[in-house]
Amino acid sequence: MMPDRRHFWIWCSALLGSSAVLAAGAEPSAPTAKPVPGMAEILAAAPASAWRPMDDAHTMYLQLPAGRVIIELEPALAPHTVANIEAMVRMHWFDGAAVVRVQDNFVAQWSNPDTTRKLPENLRMLAPEFSAPASAGSFTELPDRDGYAPQVGFINSFPAARDPAIGRVWLAHCYGAVGVGRDNDPATGNGSELYAVIGQAPRWLDRNVTVVGRIRQGIELLASLPRGGGAMGFYATPNENIAISKVAMASDLPAAERTRLEVLRTDTPTYTALVEARRNRTDAWYLRPAGYIDLCSAPLPVRPAP
Amino acid sequence: MMPDRRHFWIWCSALLGSSAVLAAGAEPSAPTAKPVPGMAEILAAAPASAWRPMDDAHTMYLQLPAGRVIIELEPALAPHTVANIEAMVRMHWFDGAAVVRVQDNFVAQWSNPDTTRKLPENLRMLAPEFSAPASAGSFTELPDRDGYAPQVGFINSFPAARDPAIGRVWLAHCYGAVGVGRDNDPATGNGSELYAVIGQAPRWLDRNVTVVGRIRQGIELLASLPRGGGAMGFYATPNENIAISKVAMASDLPAAERTRLEVLRTDTPTYTALVEARRNRTDAWYLRPAGYIDLCSAPLPVRPAP
Repeated sequence: MMPDRRHFWIWCSALLGSSAVLAAGAEPSAPTAKPVPGMAEILAAAPASAWRPMDDAHTMYLQLPAGRVIIELEPALAPHTVANIEAMVRMHWFDGAAVVRVQDNFVAQWSNPDTTRKLPENLRMLAPEFSAPASAGSFTELPDRDGYAPQVGFINSFPAARDPAIGRVWLAHCYGAVGVGRDNDPATGNGSELYAVIGQAPRWLDRNVTVVGRIRQGIELLASLPRGGGAMGFYATPNENIAISKVAMASDLPAAERTRLEVLRTDTPTYTALVEARRNRTDAWYLRPAGYIDLCSAPLPVRPAP
Repeated sequence: MMPDRRHFWIWCSALLGSSAVLAAGAEPSAPTAKPVPGMAEILAAAPASAWRPMDDAHTMYLQLPAGRVIIELEPALAPHTVANIEAMVRMHWFDGAAVVRVQDNFVAQWSNPDTTRKLPENLRMLAPEFSAPASAGSFTELPDRDGYAPQVGFINSFPAARDPAIGRVWLAHCYGAVGVGRDNDPATGNGSELYAVIGQAPRWLDRNVTVVGRIRQGIELLASLPRGGGAMGFYATPNENIAISKVAMASDLPAAERTRLEVLRTDTPTYTALVEARRNRTDAWYLRPAGYIDLCSAPLPVRPAP
């Protein structure tokens, strides 16, 4: 903490483990036995089978001025809405799209600001998919209790919740979740207006909106955009909108233009160990392990495909 | 949701209530009886006594290129650390300070990057104040359960937690919390390196770091800064640092240069009603009220002093 030393005070990053911290300049701690390996060691030791490739057929790229935002859609839980979005991408509905709203500690939202265009009738209205039958996805439960749902955990590396009393599952509004804006009529959420969570998890939106996926890379490009000065964080004037120069499905691009990523599987012993390493941190910096992790603080690592 | 209509799909802002939403262009809902007033109505009806002025003696301004960040310190829970920080401000320790780290979904951190300077001996090391005796502040408990602490609630409009078994209270790491960076030695958190939470509440830091206050205005100026490309979100080169042109205590400035704000008191019937309005929203948009609110999603309204 002396001002003449390097900065390395807080190393509980969502992405870096203790090895990375040491690399950043911290002195090694005394060589005492470490009861639980940290996140970096767990990831380094993970077998190839602990990872899965992202599915290019359901991966969407948004090209912002600062780079590519990579969204993985999850058709298992919202099949009609995901299909609607992919149809819109392929008919170039999003040509000319822009980020039109950035509300601090809440969402960044994008759409086609040309309000004179009309979506084809068949894409315009569809039944909401706020939740799905529990059989729609394989649910790995997190033992930690949650205030918003009877059970929380993961489906296919997406944060999710489940209510066994009604046999339903749904994707949860965690940081990076991508959802479908709608009007008061639930059938108006067709996917032409999408948002990503860029703040404290707004879990009260769960089951009020169709969640279609998660930003796997590039969320910081949305989260660092200027906040909108209009009501609810909309940009007050069109020239403040942040242009999205291209929206494409990965599978529609030549291989050379795709970003090949892998996602850590949440239904593996590796993931169980990783969550435990975050629930009870053993880095020398920590004096008091939390003994708990909330759903939206559980890391979901992504790496370039080897 | 038709693309030829105005954007107003998601109105569960942390700051705006249903009145603001209607102003943003939503059609009024049918004139049915509204069982619970929304946040805007509750704030509009609040008596003057539901608000308290911010204490200029413990309010710190950071001047960023984009504007003023206003931090209210809470000496009741961390008296020595707050006094240390205020002494550093008054000895101009922070002249030349800069935001040196912005890690996505985690923290923005600032300090004086001139590492050749030495803090005076008497300000350099002090005992950590990770928690305080329960008698240090008046605790208003939130009935909603929490995974990280036996009890959560508010002390003087700061999110806080309490453990009755040990008779201790502490400020919680919610969005906007300001904490004290430190090295492995807990006594190294002297306040010369401060951070603000700009993402999902990192509650696992609670009681591992001294929390000294909360950003009452301007958090978006920190949260929208470019993310650092170095380890743990530090800017990789000094010229990426975001200069802080001035750090001052409000009470040291002429009256005309102060920003006069009021904070909604959390120990009032108004606040209880407001939290309930967020726990169970009655806006026409919502199909399903959450029935719960997590500590760090409870709004803490601030307004210009009338």
